[in-house]
Amino acid sequence: MHMTDLIEKKKRGLVLTEEEIRFIIDRYTAGEIPDYQMSAMLMAILFRGMTMPETTALTMAMAHSGDMVDLSALGEHTADKHSTGGVGDKTSLVLCPMVAACGAKMAKMSGRGLGHTGGTIDKLESFPGFSVSMSPERFLEIADTVGFVIAGQTANLAPADKKMYALRDVTATVDSIPLIVGSIMSKKLASGAKTIVLDVKTGSGAFMETERDAFTLAQEMVNVGKEAGRNMAAVVTDMDQPLGFAVGNALEVKEAIDVLSGADVPDLMELCMVLGSNILVRSGLADGDEEARARLKDAVESGAALRKLADMVEAQGGDSAAVYDPSLLPAAPVQRSVKAPRSGYITAMAAKEIGLVSMHLGGGRSTKEDVIDLSVGVVLRAKVGARLAEGDELAVIHAPDEAAALRAEEELLACYTFADEPAYRPPFIRGVVT
Amino acid sequence: MHMTDLIEKKKRGLVLTEEEIRFIIDRYTAGEIPDYQMSAMLMAILFRGMTMPETTALTMAMAHSGDMVDLSALGEHTADKHSTGGVGDKTSLVLCPMVAACGAKMAKMSGRGLGHTGGTIDKLESFPGFSVSMSPERFLEIADTVGFVIAGQTANLAPADKKMYALRDVTATVDSIPLIVGSIMSKKLASGAKTIVLDVKTGSGAFMETERDAFTLAQEMVNVGKEAGRNMAAVVTDMDQPLGFAVGNALEVKEAIDVLSGADVPDLMELCMVLGSNILVRSGLADGDEEARARLKDAVESGAALRKLADMVEAQGGDSAAVYDPSLLPAAPVQRSVKAPRSGYITAMAAKEIGLVSMHLGGGRSTKEDVIDLSVGVVLRAKVGARLAEGDELAVIHAPDEAAALRAEEELLACYTFADEPAYRPPFIRGVVT
Repeated sequence: MHMTDLIEKKKRGLVLTEEEIRFIIDRYTAGEIPDYQMSAMLMAILFRGMTMPETTALTMAMAHSGDMVDLSALGEHTADKHSTGGVGDKTSLVLCPMVAACGAKMAKMSGRGLGHTGGTIDKLESFPGFSVSMSPERFLEIADTVGFVIAGQTANLAPADKKMYALRDVTATVDSIPLIVGSIMSKKLASGAKTIVLDVKTGSGAFMETERDAFTLAQEMVNVGKEAGRNMAAVVTDMDQPLGFAVGNALEVKEAIDVLSGADVPDLMELCMVLGSNILVRSGLADGDEEARARLKDAVESGAALRKLADMVEAQGGDSAAVYDPSLLPAAPVQRSVKAPRSGYITAMAAKEIGLVSMHLGGGRSTKEDVIDLSVGVVLRAKVGARLAEGDELAVIHAPDEAAALRAEEELLACYTFADEPAYRPPFIRGVVT
Repeated sequence: MHMTDLIEKKKRGLVLTEEEIRFIIDRYTAGEIPDYQMSAMLMAILFRGMTMPETTALTMAMAHSGDMVDLSALGEHTADKHSTGGVGDKTSLVLCPMVAACGAKMAKMSGRGLGHTGGTIDKLESFPGFSVSMSPERFLEIADTVGFVIAGQTANLAPADKKMYALRDVTATVDSIPLIVGSIMSKKLASGAKTIVLDVKTGSGAFMETERDAFTLAQEMVNVGKEAGRNMAAVVTDMDQPLGFAVGNALEVKEAIDVLSGADVPDLMELCMVLGSNILVRSGLADGDEEARARLKDAVESGAALRKLADMVEAQGGDSAAVYDPSLLPAAPVQRSVKAPRSGYITAMAAKEIGLVSMHLGGGRSTKEDVIDLSVGVVLRAKVGARLAEGDELAVIHAPDEAAALRAEEELLACYTFADEPAYRPPFIRGVVT
């Protein structure tokens, strides 16, 4: 088998066999196929696409390029969740405690953020002493006893993806649905959970800008997961504006705590309900959606979910005092109130750009080496559809100093569109794919 | 300017600017753009194509990546010819002496053959002592005094093409019309001739299998050459069967000598007439096609063209005795007559496969290091359209031994299709593009 022939085959739009795809991934991971052939193949895949069996074979080969984590010791109710990334997305911080309180075992490995969206690990480091480094044994133990654990990568997960992603990044071959499926699902499959729920964002702040692409990606990931014997569900959600109100690491942790304490953040809670009920039903912890939602609601109202968050923070070496008193979380020295420049309805908010406001305040990384400021960010007071009078509070900027706050205010105001009449708003949950 | 952004641009089907294309070629040639980015770009070009201004910019940037040969000392009638490569293609050996006898100056740099088609240089080495190595001064001197010279590459011609071609070869990005135009025309433009004629082959033995692709390639090369201020013509010719009758290095030299001595090989002579008249008319050596053809015919009939061949061989250090006595050319020890296995018409001959018969006899290279046997090959006695009785001579195989001859006979017979009725034959000259 020769790589040149396989590139030729894909270039002509022919279907690669499972054996051919395994050859490509295995040899590339081993360094036996050079980058220059792989990048030509990636570009050919980008143009020609892949059939479902090809995408499945690609994902499986990538998953098996490294360790396959065995979570069988945790029983049947292991679950994992992945989001394609969005602004203000603190879903894991709310969802994991909720489902853990209902009996699910979430043994998550997570990454740090890069660019305009923050990583779950960065956010959790708002708790003093919190650590994501632990032995595989301790990782399983926390998942078992607490019901959820969020670690940095403890295993050699999908090294093929690591190598391919670095190459895709510099060869303009990121935006290919089969390659995205392979990248996301190889790591999820290797992570070992029996039930996997996915949150595919669509809109201006998301990678999949069109709803059509988002649904295709969701359906393909679900199909691949099912082929691999996992319980699957994917929800396509709006990312035309930030999720919830808080954007920024500690600010998002605070919002997660608030929601677990009963605060009303409709889009965030609805997302956790949809993802959570899918986890409970599909992993066999609830008989149907109604029962699942009732149990999740009860987990919040009883305080059980909030206690799970505190237990997890403690188990991972952190001080959980802030879970019950969020004023202990890192706080920025300057809070600047941003006022509505005119009366009217908010008809649009540029989600990605609001993420960049937080990043420019120091809350995100532009290179992997950047140290981030956990305290800064933006707390929105109004979202799309709200009617404001001139001078009403639009948002509060949390900044390291007055100058940064002023710059952020200017950037933030440019993210809003106002009009005299409200605009049509598509539903936040665009659909669930199973 | 970042290469990733330029790949993205081409991938999306946008048009690259001249400056962007120059950036890509210059930086890639200098080793500042890595192969893995270039191969992704090449694949994106293959899928998206290029506009004429892009193809022109690409070709010019590639031409200027190395030396631009100055032939101005040879006057206004410098000419060059390129063929996209075919089986039995000894056109240069006939054409160059003919037009040199009419006053054109052909200062050609040529390559060796690889695969199923032989190189002009290999063929010329059938003359004992013949050398293609010479100083640039001597190269110009022979072109000036004899009227034609065929050297190996004496200058650093289009190094961008050398590097790109090596990469295209292993990344399945060879069959892209703009990339082929860039590759061929960059070297032709850098070689310095004022008039350039091209022979684009189409059919089973050619790189451009469809006539449509052949005409597109011909037109684009002509356009690029004109943009660069050259006199241009391209002829699209049939390569569904070998050109002429001889296939094999010394056998093709013999056929060229025979034609220059008045032998009737219709397709080969017609091709030389079309290419030659275009050279004479476009370089200002003849006022029209009729005059040009009359002068070319006279160059053959008077023996002037044959003398030019002998003069060139002598000037390049070879023994020209064989020009007047072809029995002195390298001869294979075994000649095996192949008989028609049935009565009927020859309706098809697989040109590429006949080239492979010669290659398997030792007449071609499968790797650059192979030493070739100049004496071997196949001389056809009948071509498509001929009516044969069973047992009539179909061809003569020239082989190093009986066993090789037997194997070649079997391979050769598989190249023919016979039928009771003659098949439609498209014209040999499919068209001329100017």
